[in-house]
Amino acid sequence: MDLPQYPDVEAAYERIKHLVHHTPVLTSQSIDKITGGTLFFKCENFQKVGAFKFRGACNAVLSLPGEVAARGVATHSSGNHAAALALAAKIEGLKAFIVMPENAPEIKKRAVAGYGAEITFCRPTLQAREEMLRNVLNKTGATEIHPYNDFQVISGQGTVARELIMDCGFFDQILVPVGGGGLMSGTAIASRHLSPACKVIACEPAGADDAWRSFRQKKLIPSENPKTIADGLLTSLGKRPFAIMLKEVDHLVTVPEKKIIEAMRMIWERMKIIVEPSSAVPLAAILDHKIDVKGKKTGIILSGGNVDLDHLPF
Amino acid sequence: MDLPQYPDVEAAYERIKHLVHHTPVLTSQSIDKITGGTLFFKCENFQKVGAFKFRGACNAVLSLPGEVAARGVATHSSGNHAAALALAAKIEGLKAFIVMPENAPEIKKRAVAGYGAEITFCRPTLQAREEMLRNVLNKTGATEIHPYNDFQVISGQGTVARELIMDCGFFDQILVPVGGGGLMSGTAIASRHLSPACKVIACEPAGADDAWRSFRQKKLIPSENPKTIADGLLTSLGKRPFAIMLKEVDHLVTVPEKKIIEAMRMIWERMKIIVEPSSAVPLAAILDHKIDVKGKKTGIILSGGNVDLDHLPF
Repeated sequence: MDLPQYPDVEAAYERIKHLVHHTPVLTSQSIDKITGGTLFFKCENFQKVGAFKFRGACNAVLSLPGEVAARGVATHSSGNHAAALALAAKIEGLKAFIVMPENAPEIKKRAVAGYGAEITFCRPTLQAREEMLRNVLNKTGATEIHPYNDFQVISGQGTVARELIMDCGFFDQILVPVGGGGLMSGTAIASRHLSPACKVIACEPAGADDAWRSFRQKKLIPSENPKTIADGLLTSLGKRPFAIMLKEVDHLVTVPEKKIIEAMRMIWERMKIIVEPSSAVPLAAILDHKIDVKGKKTGIILSGGNVDLDHLPF
Repeated sequence: MDLPQYPDVEAAYERIKHLVHHTPVLTSQSIDKITGGTLFFKCENFQKVGAFKFRGACNAVLSLPGEVAARGVATHSSGNHAAALALAAKIEGLKAFIVMPENAPEIKKRAVAGYGAEITFCRPTLQAREEMLRNVLNKTGATEIHPYNDFQVISGQGTVARELIMDCGFFDQILVPVGGGGLMSGTAIASRHLSPACKVIACEPAGADDAWRSFRQKKLIPSENPKTIADGLLTSLGKRPFAIMLKEVDHLVTVPEKKIIEAMRMIWERMKIIVEPSSAVPLAAILDHKIDVKGKKTGIILSGGNVDLDHLPF
């Protein structure tokens, strides 16, 4: 299996830098005081489509040879990757074919349609989604862009940590949430190269701890009935991210739901920014004393800010 | 009555710049698309204590002669000014005496106490608050710092527009919410000097429209039973801000509650930042077609981000 290396992250950065937001890094005196740390928050909630996913999707789309790209790109997704791929394709003047479960939130359906993607609805099971995607690929000749297992998607997600370290210098540790693992593995590749002594710690909800179990048993264990408010982290860890994790990630920690909600609220109240629950998992790990931040320079990747304001956990 | 001029704003800036956050200016492609404008949002929700109030309080405290300052500062307030004054005094190693109505929100009481201020509680009427403040002033010899009628407070609030214009250049118009009028009058003074052709438009909730009525009748008309979700704008317009408004403000517009909530939600969802309802009033005026933004470069001052997440209007 072909795994991205740091030059692939650098190439991704050069490829997408004119299309993505160079997101800000924020600090908070009051959260530093509460945690005893020196925390730097990389704000991908301010990225286009409201999440880091736009970076990977952009890089994957821009990496396709012209005649392949001309047939369009496709994926099945009910979440941020669908919107990210649709927007990346739109910007490049390409067709995007998105398979969405019919029960996907209306707001996501509208966002994807708003970017001009062609949506095919299917029953809300993984099997139905994969089957429908195969049909679409056969019919259109489009290229599938997987949300986190794709070589170029992982390379694109690595540009988050690249910007963070380039803007703020070396870190003692960087904390990143893990779901499918695209962001985690991209972060690990970039950090290992740019800030070699920096520890990379992946943070996972205890209710969806397949990455943690896979890390411990050194064997990819799929998610079973995951349950967490961090809806971006429900997916099972991908094969490529798993292989990169074993090589490049130093620790994995899991956190209870209560701490995720507490951390999310703390970020909203103290930093005045909106993050989705997935983004709050690393701070939750600190609040839960799973990660020591005292006397250390710690980077935290806030993965996105797409929340339904009508259904807040507080 | 002594009114601040631009050099007072400049002096304030030099006095406080090492203590206040130079807050960022954000833009939103999606809100520009919805409104047809080119909007620049000055983010005082990221200011210390979560609101622009810290600038004025800081400037007032730092302007006091040493022997006067040594006796401390005092105010009555249930809101952001209390926290702002308490923090400004704390930083300077001075005493702050804050009179708060006994029904003030617990979170505000804790914030003010957390900054080391001495709190005196009183019954929740304006008369009781003023009486108690007189007692405190008599007993302590402290100096009253009025939240918006004070010369140096107004000069300090003017540094918001100073930064905005210095960072982004000339504007066609700058929109600012109006309550007591400290921010509005400081904005008008700074804009008139730094971007002379720029129109300054004050935006007020229709349910608390004393500034609008005062502006039309050229006579200060106090607020009567104001009612609005924009709790920062319930106060009656002050005398100094009124005098400055007549000279320097071009227009006043009022907006219905429904539009304030719509605008607030739009800022949360599209910009991923938390603003309080008062901050949303200028965008509400645009959404309500009270202000034309097409083809114009428009500055919007987001006054603060202190909201109670347990009582959101959506």
